[in-house]
Amino acid sequence: MSKRPIIIDTDPGIDDAVALAIALFSDKLDVKLITTVAGNVSLDKVTYNTLRLLKFYGKEIPVAKGADSPLILPLKDASNVHGKSGMEGFDFEEPDEHLLLKENAVEAMHRIIMESDEPITLVPIAPLTNIALLLKVYPEVKKNIREIVLMGGSAGRGNKGVMSEFNIATDPEAAHIVFECGLPIVMAGLDVGWKALVLQEDSVKLPSLGEVGRMAYCLFQKYRGGSMKTGLKMYDSCAIAYLLRPEMYDIAETYVGVELSGDMTAGCTLVDLKGYLGRPNNAKVCMDIDGKMFREWFLESIAECI
Amino acid sequence: MSKRPIIIDTDPGIDDAVALAIALFSDKLDVKLITTVAGNVSLDKVTYNTLRLLKFYGKEIPVAKGADSPLILPLKDASNVHGKSGMEGFDFEEPDEHLLLKENAVEAMHRIIMESDEPITLVPIAPLTNIALLLKVYPEVKKNIREIVLMGGSAGRGNKGVMSEFNIATDPEAAHIVFECGLPIVMAGLDVGWKALVLQEDSVKLPSLGEVGRMAYCLFQKYRGGSMKTGLKMYDSCAIAYLLRPEMYDIAETYVGVELSGDMTAGCTLVDLKGYLGRPNNAKVCMDIDGKMFREWFLESIAECI
Amino acid sequence: MSKRPIIIDTDPGIDDAVALAIALFSDKLDVKLITTVAGNVSLDKVTYNTLRLLKFYGKEIPVAKGADSPLILPLKDASNVHGKSGMEGFDFEEPDEHLLLKENAVEAMHRIIMESDEPITLVPIAPLTNIALLLKVYPEVKKNIREIVLMGGSAGRGNKGVMSEFNIATDPEAAHIVFECGLPIVMAGLDVGWKALVLQEDSVKLPSLGEVGRMAYCLFQKYRGGSMKTGLKMYDSCAIAYLLRPEMYDIAETYVGVELSGDMTAGCTLVDLKGYLGRPNNAKVCMDIDGKMFREWFLESIAECI
Amino acid sequence: MSKRPIIIDTDPGIDDAVALAIALFSDKLDVKLITTVAGNVSLDKVTYNTLRLLKFYGKEIPVAKGADSPLILPLKDASNVHGKSGMEGFDFEEPDEHLLLKENAVEAMHRIIMESDEPITLVPIAPLTNIALLLKVYPEVKKNIREIVLMGGSAGRGNKGVMSEFNIATDPEAAHIVFECGLPIVMAGLDVGWKALVLQEDSVKLPSLGEVGRMAYCLFQKYRGGSMKTGLKMYDSCAIAYLLRPEMYDIAETYVGVELSGDMTAGCTLVDLKGYLGRPNNAKVCMDIDGKMFREWFLESIAECI
Repeated sequence: MSKRPIIIDTDPGIDDAVALAIALFSDKLDVKLITTVAGNVSLDKVTYNTLRLLKFYGKEIPVAKGADSPLILPLKDASNVHGKSGMEGFDFEEPDEHLLLKENAVEAMHRIIMESDEPITLVPIAPLTNIALLLKVYPEVKKNIREIVLMGGSAGRGNKGVMSEFNIATDPEAAHIVFECGLPIVMAGLDVGWKALVLQEDSVKLPSLGEVGRMAYCLFQKYRGGSMKTGLKMYDSCAIAYLLRPEMYDIAETYVGVELSGDMTAGCTLVDLKGYLGRPNNAKVCMDIDGKMFREWFLESIAECI
Repeated sequence: MSKRPIIIDTDPGIDDAVALAIALFSDKLDVKLITTVAGNVSLDKVTYNTLRLLKFYGKEIPVAKGADSPLILPLKDASNVHGKSGMEGFDFEEPDEHLLLKENAVEAMHRIIMESDEPITLVPIAPLTNIALLLKVYPEVKKNIREIVLMGGSAGRGNKGVMSEFNIATDPEAAHIVFECGLPIVMAGLDVGWKALVLQEDSVKLPSLGEVGRMAYCLFQKYRGGSMKTGLKMYDSCAIAYLLRPEMYDIAETYVGVELSGDMTAGCTLVDLKGYLGRPNNAKVCMDIDGKMFREWFLESIAECI
Repeated sequence: MSKRPIIIDTDPGIDDAVALAIALFSDKLDVKLITTVAGNVSLDKVTYNTLRLLKFYGKEIPVAKGADSPLILPLKDASNVHGKSGMEGFDFEEPDEHLLLKENAVEAMHRIIMESDEPITLVPIAPLTNIALLLKVYPEVKKNIREIVLMGGSAGRGNKGVMSEFNIATDPEAAHIVFECGLPIVMAGLDVGWKALVLQEDSVKLPSLGEVGRMAYCLFQKYRGGSMKTGLKMYDSCAIAYLLRPEMYDIAETYVGVELSGDMTAGCTLVDLKGYLGRPNNAKVCMDIDGKMFREWFLESIAECI
Repeated sequence: MSKRPIIIDTDPGIDDAVALAIALFSDKLDVKLITTVAGNVSLDKVTYNTLRLLKFYGKEIPVAKGADSPLILPLKDASNVHGKSGMEGFDFEEPDEHLLLKENAVEAMHRIIMESDEPITLVPIAPLTNIALLLKVYPEVKKNIREIVLMGGSAGRGNKGVMSEFNIATDPEAAHIVFECGLPIVMAGLDVGWKALVLQEDSVKLPSLGEVGRMAYCLFQKYRGGSMKTGLKMYDSCAIAYLLRPEMYDIAETYVGVELSGDMTAGCTLVDLKGYLGRPNNAKVCMDIDGKMFREWFLESIAECI
């Protein structure tokens, strides 16, 4: 079977780093392009982190730099959570910039999608600014996009605001554009992210699984100050897991709206399972995950990396 | 121990009917007044239903009629759920109106609170229009209110909108006034209401528990068309249960905000357990309930009625 | 001809002081009650100012104290404009409190309206909190209200926000309730208030017109620090002028909506002359005023006071 | 003196047609590119109209097609005002498409701005969708943009909503992006557009001024059904007039905010002359225009066309 061609839009970030590894070393995915966007930390840092990761992974994937801020809101990054650089705790080698395209993220996505023989799957695991701009500037790309499998949103409570998830709430207008674009959308959000855990007992196995496992272990240790009691949430890996093991999810087809104007709820995703809003379905939402199956898959996947 | 003096603000409604019975027949509660407000069905119907219930229960409690519509929004009642009259399925006797005060709900609450030797507990199990008007027109009542134990809101998903509960979303501005009023507030919302179930196996016992049990059984049967497979949610009884058996709840002290302006989220309660909004605590929120304990208590309570 | 019975709802404030004088000394108006509300300065100050004015005017009109804050928003008064007390620059005698009713504003308005043989005209020249509460708690008063002639709003730009007028923007939700209440409403807002000027040449005549003229002169001088170059806007007198000399106005019948949710426009009145909103008319809006006629009327009116 | 290089972003539309003519035949302006955007009528129609106009004018200016809908809102065009095609009443020749670039509007603007020796002035006389996308996808263009002189907004009342102007209210989020972008902005909106009139007495002179005058006369006649009593508003020519005769304007430097969330006010521009919003200045706003000077300039300008 041929590998599935994907573009990953990302803002590493610790759990992005691991998700990227799994995607890059999978024999079922063909990562055509990695685009970066301001989110967890600033655009310069996430781009630098992406290049550091690719050097470490030994993968020659083109990288294109995208938006340095959301469409409307000012950027409020998560450097309080992800540390100053976004990836503290491991001593990466300095990358050169030969993988960095002169094209920006929107240009590069446009070119690669239009040139591809096979429809591309977009995998955004960051705020949706780049994807929204792509869809508005080049609506013709829709013809050659297979689906958008994104990490973001929540059917319930949030992790950036009371009811809003980080990627969506960082750029609600971009998320609105994406959810209303008419393409098939898969949303893997907090409903599964909060259950996609690496536990203490899993974490200690990581260093023995190879270089990537050792790196992940170091990042996790630094991030949690050595304590892993409650488990670490592998948000971004949920989007990759959907591509590789959809059977571990419970999926609901439904309408997802993005609140743009609430004083305290802007950026909330309304996963309208009961049809209160009377709108046609626009997304498949990952409502639940088999946590045990995820943990097994996660360790296996890391073991398949270098 | 003396009975705790309370005022119940209600819009019967099937589960209001049962909650009222439990409160009226409890030897720990002294129901000083029942006020009515448009909500589940129109003001005239909920007032008529209240008088029918009191006649059936044989209780001489004064009743005062309140607001016929929310502060700002037009009334969208729940007669689609509660049936045309709001209490279908049982043949109540016609009441006379001798219990109906000439005072309206705000006047009667004001008088009874100011006259009471002991601070009054308000128990709203309906949209908060009357309570908000009371607090704005007579702020002096705050000195003699012990707390407000209300049924409404949700820390997660909703039952009127995707993220909003019926009582709060019917009059969000009133709810905002109540939550911001500075009094001790207990919120028993969907987080417990969805677990405060009467199951099929409980329901069949009801007719043998007396007249009230028989009535409840008839209302439930009509409401569910004979099927009780998934259990019936006793939302309003949750507020009464808090007064009588607080030990069955997990409680969180936190800030609760009411969204007033979101296109799709107006009426959403933001239960800010993680402090995203940076506001001082204003409520105790019932986050979880021991469902088994609730069911036992419920049946016992019905058995103590006539 | 019998005098027209009115209730004035006010928050003195300099231009309220003058408007009250004109109303109280008019032989065509019968001021049944004055109610106070937080607005230009705090409730205690506006009530104290009202009592000081009545003592100075020698008028025995009952006064009832109303709301100390808007329905939803926190009070942001205009003491930066109106001075610490709200009426600086004149040495009023201390009032006693014999005119102050034990009833609050809502109770007193309700009683007087229901007792009146002739329908009452409400004249709010302050934020509409009291009037909104009256209409919600006692909807039956609508049957005996002739019309509501209010100072507030704007068809164009604002004086509290870029597009919002002080009285409406101080309590937009109350204004919404009033404009949607179904009673005949006359709105005299900034469109006429900005042209209802007392010029330098008028101001110098004031001291010779009697005690009230002398007082007005002192307040104006203090307010403007001796300079009257651009004229003083007699906002509140515009509502009184409508009652006594409607012929000086150009009136448009139209729909007026109150914006409740805009980040920068909450409290804006949408005077929908072209029918963009597709709503039925709910108000007569004073769109223009004959400035010369107003100035003559104003000086004549002051001269008729003590 | 060298001609000033500009890019016009437009949606013809009758008054766009005339504004384009004046710009194209001016010896002081060098129109490098015309970009089109959905607005007055659909994208296909405005692009077709632009090509028809260029053929009629005999001008070889490249045209690039832009956005077919606003960023967030669905398109509500003005075909009710502008007629089915957007330019009814004159028999234009069919254009070929040799002027139509393969690049889209954003790409073409980017290329031309980056290639230009002299900083480019953007002249959007349509919804700001293209400009916003350009600024977000290619922020580097800011270094070579001299200023943005736009037709849109209002310091007072509106022409699409009660308080909102057509170009801004059609895409408020795009307008927000433009006004907050940090470049020098000149806003020529309804405050001058409503006074930039072609009167009946001017209109009758048009046919004698040449081919363009005859075309304008025909469009105006059709648009107004033969009656020109109240004068025709030359909104879009106001932006061109600012480039050529700024002395006819009164200008205020101020902050302009765009309301994004009001139920009835979204798309309203808040021209904050008094500093209510406390934000630094971001625009020069044309507050008034010398109407006589405008009419003379307008006729002279048309006479200078073919």
